[in-house]
Amino acid sequence: MMKRIAVFTSGGDAPGMNACIRAVVRTAVYHGIEVYGIMRGYSGMVKGEFVKLDSASVSNTIQKGGTILKSARSQSFQTREGRQLAFDQLVNHGIDGLVAIGGNGTFTGATLFEQEFGIPIVGAPGTIDNDLYGTDYTIGYDTAVNTALEAIDKIRDTADSHDRCFFVEVMGRDSGYIAIPCAIGGGAEIVMIPETQLSTEAVIETLRSGRNRSKTSFLVVIAEGDEEGNAHEVARQVKAAIPQLDTRVTVIGHIQRGGAPSAADRMLASQIGIAAVEGLMNGMHNVMAGIVDRKLVYTPFADTIHKRKLINQSFMRMVEILNA
Amino acid sequence: MMKRIAVFTSGGDAPGMNACIRAVVRTAVYHGIEVYGIMRGYSGMVKGEFVKLDSASVSNTIQKGGTILKSARSQSFQTREGRQLAFDQLVNHGIDGLVAIGGNGTFTGATLFEQEFGIPIVGAPGTIDNDLYGTDYTIGYDTAVNTALEAIDKIRDTADSHDRCFFVEVMGRDSGYIAIPCAIGGGAEIVMIPETQLSTEAVIETLRSGRNRSKTSFLVVIAEGDEEGNAHEVARQVKAAIPQLDTRVTVIGHIQRGGAPSAADRMLASQIGIAAVEGLMNGMHNVMAGIVDRKLVYTPFADTIHKRKLINQSFMRMVEILNA
Amino acid sequence: MMKRIAVFTSGGDAPGMNACIRAVVRTAVYHGIEVYGIMRGYSGMVKGEFVKLDSASVSNTIQKGGTILKSARSQSFQTREGRQLAFDQLVNHGIDGLVAIGGNGTFTGATLFEQEFGIPIVGAPGTIDNDLYGTDYTIGYDTAVNTALEAIDKIRDTADSHDRCFFVEVMGRDSGYIAIPCAIGGGAEIVMIPETQLSTEAVIETLRSGRNRSKTSFLVVIAEGDEEGNAHEVARQVKAAIPQLDTRVTVIGHIQRGGAPSAADRMLASQIGIAAVEGLMNGMHNVMAGIVDRKLVYTPFADTIHKRKLINQSFMRMVEILNA
Amino acid sequence: MMKRIAVFTSGGDAPGMNACIRAVVRTAVYHGIEVYGIMRGYSGMVKGEFVKLDSASVSNTIQKGGTILKSARSQSFQTREGRQLAFDQLVNHGIDGLVAIGGNGTFTGATLFEQEFGIPIVGAPGTIDNDLYGTDYTIGYDTAVNTALEAIDKIRDTADSHDRCFFVEVMGRDSGYIAIPCAIGGGAEIVMIPETQLSTEAVIETLRSGRNRSKTSFLVVIAEGDEEGNAHEVARQVKAAIPQLDTRVTVIGHIQRGGAPSAADRMLASQIGIAAVEGLMNGMHNVMAGIVDRKLVYTPFADTIHKRKLINQSFMRMVEILNA
Repeated sequence: MMKRIAVFTSGGDAPGMNACIRAVVRTAVYHGIEVYGIMRGYSGMVKGEFVKLDSASVSNTIQKGGTILKSARSQSFQTREGRQLAFDQLVNHGIDGLVAIGGNGTFTGATLFEQEFGIPIVGAPGTIDNDLYGTDYTIGYDTAVNTALEAIDKIRDTADSHDRCFFVEVMGRDSGYIAIPCAIGGGAEIVMIPETQLSTEAVIETLRSGRNRSKTSFLVVIAEGDEEGNAHEVARQVKAAIPQLDTRVTVIGHIQRGGAPSAADRMLASQIGIAAVEGLMNGMHNVMAGIVDRKLVYTPFADTIHKRKLINQSFMRMVEILNA
Repeated sequence: MMKRIAVFTSGGDAPGMNACIRAVVRTAVYHGIEVYGIMRGYSGMVKGEFVKLDSASVSNTIQKGGTILKSARSQSFQTREGRQLAFDQLVNHGIDGLVAIGGNGTFTGATLFEQEFGIPIVGAPGTIDNDLYGTDYTIGYDTAVNTALEAIDKIRDTADSHDRCFFVEVMGRDSGYIAIPCAIGGGAEIVMIPETQLSTEAVIETLRSGRNRSKTSFLVVIAEGDEEGNAHEVARQVKAAIPQLDTRVTVIGHIQRGGAPSAADRMLASQIGIAAVEGLMNGMHNVMAGIVDRKLVYTPFADTIHKRKLINQSFMRMVEILNA
Repeated sequence: MMKRIAVFTSGGDAPGMNACIRAVVRTAVYHGIEVYGIMRGYSGMVKGEFVKLDSASVSNTIQKGGTILKSARSQSFQTREGRQLAFDQLVNHGIDGLVAIGGNGTFTGATLFEQEFGIPIVGAPGTIDNDLYGTDYTIGYDTAVNTALEAIDKIRDTADSHDRCFFVEVMGRDSGYIAIPCAIGGGAEIVMIPETQLSTEAVIETLRSGRNRSKTSFLVVIAEGDEEGNAHEVARQVKAAIPQLDTRVTVIGHIQRGGAPSAADRMLASQIGIAAVEGLMNGMHNVMAGIVDRKLVYTPFADTIHKRKLINQSFMRMVEILNA
Repeated sequence: MMKRIAVFTSGGDAPGMNACIRAVVRTAVYHGIEVYGIMRGYSGMVKGEFVKLDSASVSNTIQKGGTILKSARSQSFQTREGRQLAFDQLVNHGIDGLVAIGGNGTFTGATLFEQEFGIPIVGAPGTIDNDLYGTDYTIGYDTAVNTALEAIDKIRDTADSHDRCFFVEVMGRDSGYIAIPCAIGGGAEIVMIPETQLSTEAVIETLRSGRNRSKTSFLVVIAEGDEEGNAHEVARQVKAAIPQLDTRVTVIGHIQRGGAPSAADRMLASQIGIAAVEGLMNGMHNVMAGIVDRKLVYTPFADTIHKRKLINQSFMRMVEILNA
């Protein structure tokens, strides 16, 4: 039986992490379980940066971006000695179980740690990238997309006013999850994502054909991980091919990680925070809590790490139909 | 085979209606179908307010609130004579099929109209209320919730600064779909929705008990349709029972209907707009296009009108756990 | 010479109060002066709710709405005995000077208090209403106007979609400072403010004439303090006179007090916070720091309380020209 | 006497340009003057892209970013032949006077054009940069600052969560007008602007000293025109000097030009639009309309072009006091 648990955030921060921490804390308190926060992820676990949390500790945090528990990389935790130190800290603080909020890097560490030391860990998918198997959406994804889309709406104003072609780079090193709704919702003519093989030549062709149909302004959304290289490089090649095109580049960047979480992210983070604690109470471990088709599911870390969540292929067709 | 279709919006306007109109138009054009917009819903259908639309007509509309086709009530369409006039207008304009964007009132009219005159109609769920069977979310719902939640975040600032109890009324005459995420996401202590029987006495009890635990500011979210009456009335009764409580009321009101649609609403509206046109092409009629568990489904109007989409009961428990 | 000062907020909260508190604290620290925060204004002063503040206490507060020092009414401070208690608390804490952030009520109390006990007080204009003589703008005003205007933009969407006449009530019991830019910036046809004598009859006349020119949607902005009564009452009379008009009312309400302060409010609050502390250091007292024509000025409390800051009459003409 | 005027936008687009166009049109109509819009600035003037405008043409544009009249460079207008063509177009359309919305490039062209052909021109300061003599604020500046500041608020979330040092580049090739309020309002530790000689060495020193005082996250705001080079270059040098610092760069970029104008920009644009038309009516020419110390002033183009509007030196001191 769980008497005391700890929660931490790890990897890139995501809007809604605080809402998830809050849900973990309040759920633990609700069930009479003590709860600690570990500062700076595995790094703070190794160093013993533990903070006792209660209901009041998380008051007024649900709307805050970032993570009040902070996040950091830990070289030490990647060694057996470091993980031993981390485990000793948990023992010293009487921790029975862990809630790990983060992405695949976080869960990979958790898997190894649980294997070696047997401490039960339940994960919560906290990353803006949405590329985690085992949940339809990750915490932070909806907010990041809305932030990027608001930026794109503003860029559209200036693109239209100047008859320009804008290349907008959004986050997503390995997937087009952020790029796709930005392109569809932003009315982009073209979207370049890691999952497809759209060549710069094809982009140039599409822009040429648009110009022939008298289109004067264009928006190309590019996921940062596209193999054709980043927005600056694509823009350079396009400009070389169509010199009359007035090209501009915007890299939306880190603002996608911040800001108050959207309603959907607050709901998701709250549901998953509750599920993580109640999962631990019910003997779950080595799993990530997620929501699939509006139902709560627990997926083994091994699957979240190794299985690929494929992007809906129909979305590419939507861009073709809608933004022609 | 469809050669020419028409699209209209009816009922209360909702953010994303323009994104849906745009998708209908672009999809029709993509498939070589002509498309007309009918102004002011059934009213304009009766009066013959038809406008030819092409791809350019809907440029730069995806991010716009409201509906470019406008919406209005029609007394005339409620009579057999009025509907005959409407049908004659459709015949005169050579319309083979209709896309009706709206809610249950819209679909009730559509059902009768199709019965009488046999014109194929596919519906799109455009309403902020989300209380439509046959789709997980309606177009406009996500935006309305985010708008209300942003307002609530602001109210929290002033509630906390003054140690006040705020009663915030959000939209939802028949359901708590908007109120629930506002309450959970806004950190409300109490939520009153039509689906539950929470009495004002129980509200008073909860507030008293909070004050005994030294809580100083409170947020009560109330759906406009709650049987206990609207926010002003509840606040009056609470104030009578706990005179020391510094109570305030805010009715968020019509701002929930406006504003640029969220990313999720733009995606949903686009998917459904495509599905509505392709549904008509495939012989669908008398059905509403919706997304259930991320899959496209067509639901008979009779079901969208008569079946109830129940609110997830676990959400009430979330308020209890998280906002204690 | 000042060795230790205290700062408090009083009256209705306003966005930017925290930015001002932060500036007071950081400026004091910069000059080697100790600084305390007094919770809940005069109420906390009487009760001795003093908190030591340093640079870190105000980290990450500049963007926060509300006031971290809270605000409250104090019956006790309105009595000579209460003020004696308050002064004793200041003496006990070794306070040499006070920064009072608030409006006219705050400064009236401060004037009396300084008269009786001789403690130097410098005021900062913290109120969304902007009706304070001695400063072009008050802290919170710019944010409140932007918040109201964003709401009005959303209402415009739905007004246009339904051919409606919206009556929107904004804050401003004694002045039209908030209503005027909302009306001009929101494209309102009519604005009703306390400073003018626009009768409901005249409003009805303007609406009638607009309808005769085929205008279909209207926006009437009403300051809450207009003598013609609030928005609901005006709407009722208009509806009685023009029954065909589809009227709706929205009272924007308390959301105008919350939210992250605008850039202009952060700048203003920061400038004034610095000026208040440096004013005290230079022997200023019984004055409010303000910015007039981009220059720092100190105005005697007596003037801020008794002199009227008149609204620019040309603004009424702007509504007439622009929104005809 | 003016019977027919034309309005155009030129140079980089700025939020509020549409509000200004709208004011020009409505004011002209109010005074019984006909008004044309010229598309794409001087380029459209040369080519004869003139559009008749009336009150309805500018309905629902006050809240729109960008410029409905578009903007473009014109090689042709830089030649005497091109300007002759432009003048012929004006004569052919019976234009008696021009309102030119833009910045110094626009006014330089206007000065020459008026010299050569004698057509009266009044300018409106439409540029986000605010570096125009003759007005306290330019149209678009307030919005651009708020947009950048909202982005910075989001970046603060992630900077704090990861204990990082962020270098944020905002617009302002020749001045720190945008950078200064972003730095003060965003709580930046350091601001680098063209007007000061802050060396990268000094930045490194400040960061080192902050680290010694246990500060863990930093924000450096850089105007794009700073002589030390852009944000990427500064970050590179800082990283080389303090390798332990976790540095990140964000270039806010073109989103600063878009978006709905703030309340202040709508007011300013409206005032100036009215003043430009009434200035022409009163025989003004070769001047820019501006607001200085809340009063309308007309400044000769020669002064707006050649005089420098100096940044308030006290602002640098504010950064030092507040963000230490």
